[in-house]
Amino acid sequence: MKATVLHAPGDIRLDDVPDPSLQAPTDALVRVTAACVCGSDLWPYRGINEVQGPTRIGHEFVGIVEEVGSQVRSVRPGDFVVAPFMYSDNTCPHCRVGIQSRCATGGFWGGADRDGRFVDGGQGEYVRVPLADGTLVATREVPDDALVPSLLSLSDVMGTGWHAAVAAGVREGDTVVVGGDGAVGLVVEVRGDEAVESVHELTEGVGADAVLECVGTNEAMQTAIASARPGATVGYVGVPHGVEYPVRDMFARNVGIAGGIAPARQYLPRLRDEVLAGEIEPGLVFDLELPLTEVAEAYAAMDERRAIKSLVRP
Amino acid sequence: MKATVLHAPGDIRLDDVPDPSLQAPTDALVRVTAACVCGSDLWPYRGINEVQGPTRIGHEFVGIVEEVGSQVRSVRPGDFVVAPFMYSDNTCPHCRVGIQSRCATGGFWGGADRDGRFVDGGQGEYVRVPLADGTLVATREVPDDALVPSLLSLSDVMGTGWHAAVAAGVREGDTVVVGGDGAVGLVVEVRGDEAVESVHELTEGVGADAVLECVGTNEAMQTAIASARPGATVGYVGVPHGVEYPVRDMFARNVGIAGGIAPARQYLPRLRDEVLAGEIEPGLVFDLELPLTEVAEAYAAMDERRAIKSLVRP
Repeated sequence: MKATVLHAPGDIRLDDVPDPSLQAPTDALVRVTAACVCGSDLWPYRGINEVQGPTRIGHEFVGIVEEVGSQVRSVRPGDFVVAPFMYSDNTCPHCRVGIQSRCATGGFWGGADRDGRFVDGGQGEYVRVPLADGTLVATREVPDDALVPSLLSLSDVMGTGWHAAVAAGVREGDTVVVGGDGAVGLVVEVRGDEAVESVHELTEGVGADAVLECVGTNEAMQTAIASARPGATVGYVGVPHGVEYPVRDMFARNVGIAGGIAPARQYLPRLRDEVLAGEIEPGLVFDLELPLTEVAEAYAAMDERRAIKSLVRP
Repeated sequence: MKATVLHAPGDIRLDDVPDPSLQAPTDALVRVTAACVCGSDLWPYRGINEVQGPTRIGHEFVGIVEEVGSQVRSVRPGDFVVAPFMYSDNTCPHCRVGIQSRCATGGFWGGADRDGRFVDGGQGEYVRVPLADGTLVATREVPDDALVPSLLSLSDVMGTGWHAAVAAGVREGDTVVVGGDGAVGLVVEVRGDEAVESVHELTEGVGADAVLECVGTNEAMQTAIASARPGATVGYVGVPHGVEYPVRDMFARNVGIAGGIAPARQYLPRLRDEVLAGEIEPGLVFDLELPLTEVAEAYAAMDERRAIKSLVRP
């Protein structure tokens, strides 16, 4: 089959790779109908995270179940499914409290599973899905094509933004600052001290009731913390790069931090229902759609900020 | 009057100082009937925090109102009152959301107020209390002497421990680790890796549902974070000294931190009622009681770990 492989920083290609097949009775085989590029895919693409030889990539996808192992109960061939950006058993103690991103037997797409067997990346034609019952969330019927971008966004970007808001304890009526540099946070247009100043002006010197930090750089985190009112929480979901917390300032102002790798699986059933009911349309985040054969351009467009988020279709 | 003065590390004395008097119409004058020594008083006493010349000290006291300014409405002469460890107006935006420890016009005992007027420390015979309506919490009647230690503990130690639990989001049935090195946290008996290992053994590898960090050293904070289960929050109230957060580990495991300088004033009315109803007896924390004239021994006993917490009576 064809799948996306990052060979070196800036060198991304659609290669021929082995067709996946069921390896365990809890596996499912999914034919990918739409996938997308994540801001976090840009870290290795830009060489900020080291690339150690050719790597399968992509962790956001939706598709049709082709085949399931003998122990799979919750999905069957023909189902349309959304995969969260990590697979999980959904039964371990961490999953049971809603932190499927720390599942005792789960893991990331594009690497080895706990038994050392390769798990495909999401930007390809097919994916072997381990722990299918705990990982995949199906829709009752195959949805209208117009809903696919919104359902795909639940793999990561929408669930991740949601997690920032949940972690920050956002309540109705709150003044919320969203700090972003990619697809997750899309509101703040200035940076650093200027941003902090704007927030304090807008809130009459009080600071924001909650702050969602969706970038991961140290500058963005300092801005987020400085924008928070005393007693507020910064919900953060950007992968931290060089972040150092201002410990004494946070202590003096009772500003907390909460968040981390989003348990997208926790939010999927609820957000799926909201998408299908037409209550939310997070698929609007995609401003570029290309065939999978042009995946290199999908990356380049995001890297050069010509696109916010790219969707690719095999 | 007599009041406690820290002259240099290890050199603490009961000195003759000027009698305080009302300076503003929102002031009250309180005759201290009991005060105590805080773990945080030991930082300058031990020379870990710099001591810049003789400094009035003490921030936990209860007493009888002697005199009030013309604008004071909530307390009157003869009232028994508890003072939280910071004074606050209880009306600014930060106070209104319960973060009186960041009051826009409040401050610490033993320094200058916003108008540059001296505010007494708590370990003395009298204290001028600024913003008396927002600061002091009275009891309906002068309480029985046996209740005084418990009411005094609400100035700081009890309210601070309570804040750690609130910040950590402790719920009924949770497995909670309390890390302490003084009067606030009194459960964990081992340190470092050994402590983390014990917690993980006790919780079958899962980690604690909530962790209360009541020390402030870097070792204690690392122990707290490593003891927390994924998705848990470390509520922290120990003044941080050299703390650095393990950013990537916290992100990977969704371990949050919340807390800071406790808004003891927020919790005072509720905890006062619980003490008076005999539902809690936090005064048990005091294991040494001395006359104020022996305040030096009250410090030495805590410094040398002969006492957990010392109460002094003028």
